Amino acid sequence: MVYPEVKVLENVKEVLKAIEGRKYRRMYVIACGGSSALMYPSQFLVDTKAKELTCEYLNSNEFIYRNSPAVNEEAIVILCSQEGKTPETVAAAKHAREKGATVITIAMEDNTPLEAAGELYVKYGYYETADPIDTSYGVMYLLTSGILEAQEGIPLFDGMVRNLEKLKPVVDKAKEQYKEAAEYYGKSCKEDRVLYSLGSGSNYSQAYVFCNCYMMEMQWINAIPLHAGEFFHGPFEIIEKNSPVIMLMGLDQTRFLEERALTFLEKYTDRIFKIDMKDVDFMEVEEEYKGYLAAMVINNICRMFSKAIAKEREHSLDIRRYMHIVEY
Amino acid sequence: MVYPEVKVLENVKEVLKAIEGRKYRRMYVIACGGSSALMYPSQFLVDTKAKELTCEYLNSNEFIYRNSPAVNEEAIVILCSQEGKTPETVAAAKHAREKGATVITIAMEDNTPLEAAGELYVKYGYYETADPIDTSYGVMYLLTSGILEAQEGIPLFDGMVRNLEKLKPVVDKAKEQYKEAAEYYGKSCKEDRVLYSLGSGSNYSQAYVFCNCYMMEMQWINAIPLHAGEFFHGPFEIIEKNSPVIMLMGLDQTRFLEERALTFLEKYTDRIFKIDMKDVDFMEVEEEYKGYLAAMVINNICRMFSKAIAKEREHSLDIRRYMHIVEY
Repeated sequence: MVYPEVKVLENVKEVLKAIEGRKYRRMYVIACGGSSALMYPSQFLVDTKAKELTCEYLNSNEFIYRNSPAVNEEAIVILCSQEGKTPETVAAAKHAREKGATVITIAMEDNTPLEAAGELYVKYGYYETADPIDTSYGVMYLLTSGILEAQEGIPLFDGMVRNLEKLKPVVDKAKEQYKEAAEYYGKSCKEDRVLYSLGSGSNYSQAYVFCNCYMMEMQWINAIPLHAGEFFHGPFEIIEKNSPVIMLMGLDQTRFLEERALTFLEKYTDRIFKIDMKDVDFMEVEEEYKGYLAAMVINNICRMFSKAIAKEREHSLDIRRYMHIVEY
Repeated sequence: MVYPEVKVLENVKEVLKAIEGRKYRRMYVIACGGSSALMYPSQFLVDTKAKELTCEYLNSNEFIYRNSPAVNEEAIVILCSQEGKTPETVAAAKHAREKGATVITIAMEDNTPLEAAGELYVKYGYYETADPIDTSYGVMYLLTSGILEAQEGIPLFDGMVRNLEKLKPVVDKAKEQYKEAAEYYGKSCKEDRVLYSLGSGSNYSQAYVFCNCYMMEMQWINAIPLHAGEFFHGPFEIIEKNSPVIMLMGLDQTRFLEERALTFLEKYTDRIFKIDMKDVDFMEVEEEYKGYLAAMVINNICRMFSKAIAKEREHSLDIRRYMHIVEY
């Protein structure tokens, strides 16, 4: 499938313009699976920047059934579904609108039930071909920066635009740099029955999506996402000399947690697959934005790792046995 | 080790009295591992009841390093560590106090670094011997109810006391009822290399603690906690006819998510281990409180399941290879 080129910036600006003057207490980022994971870095952005606005990150059905009284006129809810038709996310958008919240939806295709269920809408581009600023992650960071700027008076939007626009060569070079590591991962892990991925801060989202979507969904391999801080309070006891662990090392303020986990792992397993943003050339990206944008670079590398293992196992990333096939 | 009897109610009331009149925008529940999991139901309680107060649930080090500007005089931070000396949690308490937040700590032992780091403190009893109201879960629900009542004007505290006080015979009978199921689980799963546990709402905390602590930490068995809503957006593709899944069925408003997962699992695996609160006699517990208190009953049953598998595998729940043994 070939997706047309999408440029999101004007569309995002229109959406931010449309909500100008509205005051929010809470932001919610609501989706399912991979679309949920891509919203987690925005929760992290709000949490590390805002004094007043809060951001809650929930699965679409959990959001609906929790039915929080705080979802009201003072809430802004952003929902994502790649094809714009995930039933739970469409229902969550309707739920939020009925309760009076501002509802923004984002998807890769126009004229979908999700777009119809929301008040405002941004279309994003396909991650493989679009410029980083035009992907789902880009749109989420733009919207969140704009909302934070309007609600909290933190000058953030122009900087986010400027730095997202500098990210493409960074991603391209990083992908080239991690090509061999990805191939090695595929070869090394093709027979493993259980994989692990660790990260903290914004990068935890990538441990989550790697395990839940790229491995369990798309490869039918057991994979356990571990938070690098929680690791030492239970899960680390599972680690043995041959445990295969993808160690995500980002650049946000929680990097210490990842470094601590790495130090432990280096002693107790011989099979660490390190994806380290300190080894990546961020070129002209400004210091303040590196931590946030690193999660997007990691996402690209993780996708390469999943393609490499899919190739080695001759198990296409597109095969499903249940999803969109059986009723559920 | 024998723990002395602890009665928490007067202590909790003193703490609530001490913060009377203070106004909060945010509550944080901060801990690591099993102590973190036991705070998740309180996050759920705030989320389902409060219009204004928000509650954030974070690992202790993630909380410190995120260093959110919202942790200030308008925040109340509750931290838990069983023995009161988890270094990250002690550091998190200090961090929160330095930033001006109200800091309440809870632990099973007095005169600990954690108690010293906070402003206010509640000692709780040992889960095996204490009345449910006097356990960590009980204390968290009492504090949270008191805070919600003071901040939001929701009459909740007396009801929570009344219903927690009715829980002991419910737990005792439920444990008796699930004795055989626990033994069967132990026998059936003793050779499995990967286990799963599913839940939503307040019960997700029990899927988390079962997998991360009772299985990975205490049994060195791979175990994957799955959110019953997220399940359908990735992880369900891993399920095969012989996949062993502990299905947690609670009574809170997200039960539909668990029922949907159960319906799917009944078709695609022969090995469901269902812990269903609809089958449990809640006796005099009032309807409004059942959903919240069910998580505590599930916790007791999950502990029985972990004891049963430990016995079958002749692997004591107390054996560690790293925790408190090596440096990390």
